[in-house]
Amino acid sequence: MTPSYGFACTEAGAPMKPWSFERRDLREDDVRIEITHCGVCHSDIHQAHNDWGVATFPLVPGHEIVGRVVEVGSAVSTYKVGDKVGVGCMVDSCQECPSCAEGLEQYCENGMTPTYAGEDRRDGQPTYGGYSDQIIVRDKFVLRMPENLDLAAAAPLLCAGITTYSPLKHVGLAKGQKLAVVGLGGLGHMAIKFGVAMGAEVTLFTRSASKEAEARELGCTHVVLSTNEEEMKALAGTFDFILDTVPVPHDLNPYIATLKRDGTHIIVGVIGPLDPPVSGVNLIFGRKTVLGSLIGGIAETQEMLDFCAEHGISCDIETIKIAEINEAFDRTVKGDVHYRFVIDMASLAETKQAA
Amino acid sequence: MTPSYGFACTEAGAPMKPWSFERRDLREDDVRIEITHCGVCHSDIHQAHNDWGVATFPLVPGHEIVGRVVEVGSAVSTYKVGDKVGVGCMVDSCQECPSCAEGLEQYCENGMTPTYAGEDRRDGQPTYGGYSDQIIVRDKFVLRMPENLDLAAAAPLLCAGITTYSPLKHVGLAKGQKLAVVGLGGLGHMAIKFGVAMGAEVTLFTRSASKEAEARELGCTHVVLSTNEEEMKALAGTFDFILDTVPVPHDLNPYIATLKRDGTHIIVGVIGPLDPPVSGVNLIFGRKTVLGSLIGGIAETQEMLDFCAEHGISCDIETIKIAEINEAFDRTVKGDVHYRFVIDMASLAETKQAA
Ligand SMILES: [Zn+2]
Ligand SMILES: [Zn+2]
Ligand SMILES: [Zn+2]
Ligand SMILES: [Zn+2]
Repeated sequence: MTPSYGFACTEAGAPMKPWSFERRDLREDDVRIEITHCGVCHSDIHQAHNDWGVATFPLVPGHEIVGRVVEVGSAVSTYKVGDKVGVGCMVDSCQECPSCAEGLEQYCENGMTPTYAGEDRRDGQPTYGGYSDQIIVRDKFVLRMPENLDLAAAAPLLCAGITTYSPLKHVGLAKGQKLAVVGLGGLGHMAIKFGVAMGAEVTLFTRSASKEAEARELGCTHVVLSTNEEEMKALAGTFDFILDTVPVPHDLNPYIATLKRDGTHIIVGVIGPLDPPVSGVNLIFGRKTVLGSLIGGIAETQEMLDFCAEHGISCDIETIKIAEINEAFDRTVKGDVHYRFVIDMASLAETKQAA
Repeated sequence: MTPSYGFACTEAGAPMKPWSFERRDLREDDVRIEITHCGVCHSDIHQAHNDWGVATFPLVPGHEIVGRVVEVGSAVSTYKVGDKVGVGCMVDSCQECPSCAEGLEQYCENGMTPTYAGEDRRDGQPTYGGYSDQIIVRDKFVLRMPENLDLAAAAPLLCAGITTYSPLKHVGLAKGQKLAVVGLGGLGHMAIKFGVAMGAEVTLFTRSASKEAEARELGCTHVVLSTNEEEMKALAGTFDFILDTVPVPHDLNPYIATLKRDGTHIIVGVIGPLDPPVSGVNLIFGRKTVLGSLIGGIAETQEMLDFCAEHGISCDIETIKIAEINEAFDRTVKGDVHYRFVIDMASLAETKQAA
């Protein structure tokens, strides 16, 4: 076994605390990664609170992981010691089903293995995430970080980035099309950057007027207060696509009304009922679509990282020490972050000395 | 003005009664049609009850109209006296907006003119539907009925037919794909016929076991009781498309679960909230779609009629006299019809003699 050290939550709702644990021995197709940074995703908080009822404890969260390769198994040819790499939301999948065959491992029909709170497919051991000094991951699920990306600012690309990039590519967002992004957070700010880089005219729907300036800095040409009914009505039939990043149930109908005929309202965050209900009228009169999308496949994640390198895109982050993680959770829940906390994993050593 | 005679409902919920009224004079681009048959669509009943709050009274329903041309305006070159023709749910549109330009008049951005309970675009007069001896319609909105289609059995193609044909073409239903149809009524039985003719493997979801034999006769290879939770669960990830013809709010989630990754649940009937709400989880985990669709454009309606002629498809109908219309409404509400009532308009004359 591989002695590891990180921060864990021992039961639903408990604070994150230092924890020494063991990861598996390196297998022949494994890569051992020394983690330099890990993003703080809203899912980490949901899982720590066991909001979805699928968490396992002790829980080591973190699926926006970047670092350097420190060891590779005998069968690994794609990575070598010293490589800058990343790990996202998945660490394995069946590799045999149609979804895996199409490079859509996130939809693996036998269930992909999540980076944490999952179970290893070979030995059944729990998986532990990136709030940790190192991680051991099957080579096929390791991403190559382009040289010109700052590792810290690139970490959230592994979840917030791919979650917004993948559906925009899937629906074929094209130059000159009109994209509206709902919500300006970790996902929303990436959606805006990708939309702009793909040549779309991007509008932000937000509930806080204070976000106008920052949205424009990110490249939005329009910022609309979704609470302003008149402004919303005036936008009827405007957008080709809406990328809705809001992570809680909310009313989609006022947004759907702003779609053109054949427009698509994409949801990536609502892990729950679309309540209040979507109106059938809103979909039928205009041949409109509500589409769900979950992160992205491994090949597409690599494509997204390369796209970011080419277009100079990374996340806007606030770097924290891991000792500040509980405060960071609280601030993330309040939306008080621009736009993603990223843990500098060098700070782990300090907590060891303290302990 | 053109003296006309038909059946109307004078106020919301009132029974249908004989009514003499006037239609406009023939314009240069108009076709005057002697109506031989008119289908009874569930919308006719909704409108007679003003369920959607948009009806106008007196209301002459009927938008599944077939008959023969008896007169044409001076500018009409596409139809001549004696031609077998049809009229569906629309009698005009702006002809200028992008939707009209693409042949999608049903989504006219300036609002298409419905066949009844609408307002003529030129003179503002109310439009009256097909429960009548004749109708005067702009040539562009008249369909040609293929010679080998029985007029009575073809009438419901103008609404029930195009409503189910259009979304199947739009999503690209292909040979060998798996289609599930929800509900076996006027729309459902047409959806099955089209699915089979397009080469799909068609399953019916129904709540009544008694429908199994008829569904198989229509070409379904599988019939599934949607109330049987185990059977539904066993179908997880099975279908490429679901065409849901149920006209009232219902739970889409058990159906969505039976879609493959990237599958589409098409709704054509729910003029109201999708209540209980669709689960975001059901869409996100599988990149699934809920899509609305409204009838079809004029060119596509003609394509559908020609497709029916080629494949020997028509509706299964029960022919009634117009004096039986109130009873037919009641039976339609109860689902007691196989699968569409069609009024033989020759019976109008009898009511005139009686009156
Ligand atoms: Zn995440
Ligand atoms: Zn798989
Ligand atoms: Zn109809
Ligand atoms: Zn138009």
